[in-house]
Amino acid sequence: MSAGPEVSLGPGAAVLAVDVGGTDTKSALVDGSGVVREVLRRPTPRDAGRTGERVVDEAAAVAAELAARHPDVTPRALGLVVPGIVDDERGVGVWSENLGWRDAPFAEAASARLGLPVSLGHDVAAAGWAEYRLGAAAGYRDALVVTLGTGIAAAVLLDGRPYRGGGLAGEIGHARVADGPDCVCGGRGCLEAVASAAAIARRYTDASGIQVPGARDVLAAMEDGDAVARAVWDEALDALALGLSHVVALLAPQAIVLGGGLSHAGDTLLAPLAERLGALLTFHRRPALVPARLGGDAGVLGAALRARDVAPSAGGGA
Amino acid sequence: MSAGPEVSLGPGAAVLAVDVGGTDTKSALVDGSGVVREVLRRPTPRDAGRTGERVVDEAAAVAAELAARHPDVTPRALGLVVPGIVDDERGVGVWSENLGWRDAPFAEAASARLGLPVSLGHDVAAAGWAEYRLGAAAGYRDALVVTLGTGIAAAVLLDGRPYRGGGLAGEIGHARVADGPDCVCGGRGCLEAVASAAAIARRYTDASGIQVPGARDVLAAMEDGDAVARAVWDEALDALALGLSHVVALLAPQAIVLGGGLSHAGDTLLAPLAERLGALLTFHRRPALVPARLGGDAGVLGAALRARDVAPSAGGGA
Repeated sequence: MSAGPEVSLGPGAAVLAVDVGGTDTKSALVDGSGVVREVLRRPTPRDAGRTGERVVDEAAAVAAELAARHPDVTPRALGLVVPGIVDDERGVGVWSENLGWRDAPFAEAASARLGLPVSLGHDVAAAGWAEYRLGAAAGYRDALVVTLGTGIAAAVLLDGRPYRGGGLAGEIGHARVADGPDCVCGGRGCLEAVASAAAIARRYTDASGIQVPGARDVLAAMEDGDAVARAVWDEALDALALGLSHVVALLAPQAIVLGGGLSHAGDTLLAPLAERLGALLTFHRRPALVPARLGGDAGVLGAALRARDVAPSAGGGA
Repeated sequence: MSAGPEVSLGPGAAVLAVDVGGTDTKSALVDGSGVVREVLRRPTPRDAGRTGERVVDEAAAVAAELAARHPDVTPRALGLVVPGIVDDERGVGVWSENLGWRDAPFAEAASARLGLPVSLGHDVAAAGWAEYRLGAAAGYRDALVVTLGTGIAAAVLLDGRPYRGGGLAGEIGHARVADGPDCVCGGRGCLEAVASAAAIARRYTDASGIQVPGARDVLAAMEDGDAVARAVWDEALDALALGLSHVVALLAPQAIVLGGGLSHAGDTLLAPLAERLGALLTFHRRPALVPARLGGDAGVLGAALRARDVAPSAGGGA
């Protein structure tokens, strides 16, 4: 599950990293040589209206626990990444529908609590940054790192830098690619409503009357010859290809990295998607379509990279 | 026609600027206080297979002419912008279908000929940069400057910088927004095939049997109550709104500046386009839709800005 031992950040400050997810929170301690010493995974604390404060409590608890077990590593900064709309510059979690905070001053609160500089970032953006610096997008100057999970969103990496658009960039899941169905965002025919893992399962159930727990089951049915599953999957691929063709026309990325749950479909996804995307392009720069490399650890590694950016340069750590 | 006297680049090096268009070439002399002293407009030289060389000849001739008329201004650099695919970094005109060059080493050739540092750029990108620095997009950090003319293309300005994607960014005219018609690029249903000025005129003629010289005549017919003209214009607006909605989802620009011939339609374009775009958006950052301010001089002003970037800093000019 953990990519920790396989990936090194290289020499720099020792840092703490915390990636707050909708279900679980992952925390990591990175030493001065860039080795991830330990990754902890715990349920994300939830406390109606106070989840933001509990996240900071949890970061402090994890910091103490990791300090006790790794006394030779003294972290110099914390990278904290959270979902929703995030204002990196002010260090504020602007809004999370799922976790229920609004204008949560994470950076300030965590810094006061831990006595460390804190960099707050967005989970999808941080995961994308990690893939760009350490993973599947390394070596490409212009890239998109797309998360195909319950939702669909992307990190935009251009000319060596993340592009954030005030925290609202990368919402490719909410651009219209079909005449329907309705999307949770209030739109219609959004990419996410057709091609996310959740949408694929839901659309299969709607069309077949068969309840399935997830997109994986739809893929399994398709491989057993289920024509409804095939139609749902093909529509998802068409929608993804169309959405990505707009990205290619606008930004001409050299690579599009695909991560998130659906990307585990491997060549069942990549090969037909590349074919459909290719059919939509003419003179455009054709991006490499590549699977994400850092898996579920991309977010916490991105948090660690952020932490290093704010660590005092003198604090080389352990 | 000329925005010259109204726009100042501010203090800096005196420079020459040349904007090579498909029909005309504009050249300007900017003095050390940033005032555009003169703008010349001449037919773009054409010489089968040698147009690239003739462009450099023309730049040298214009430089001599301007020097004779403005002996008090000594330009320290040349900014040259050309259409097609341009490699800014190497200073090479990679390809122009319209003007017929391939791998033309403009920067090197012009520099040898004029004895000045030369910055080569792309015409649409340079016009966008001028609108971003001096025109309608000034004051917005993240913006798109769209040219709606014979073709449709955009300059992408993000976090204070132009994004070029290896010279292939901004090709929003070649993303699919409809089931048809065929596009010159080999694609189908491209934005440019539905909503460019040329497409609007062509589609009106196809549907009505009435020959028209341009989109302006289709708009005039619409205002006289012509239902075919109305339908063609509405389809163009729908296509533009859909294409721009993908841009908004991906980049969340604060402003989208509309220039090129079609933008002269003013509120006939802007008001219904804003309404249609608004209907496609939900939580997204809604961009200001604003008309370009620099008109046909945007390209040559962008060339002048590029020239200033390569002018020797000691050479403050006149």
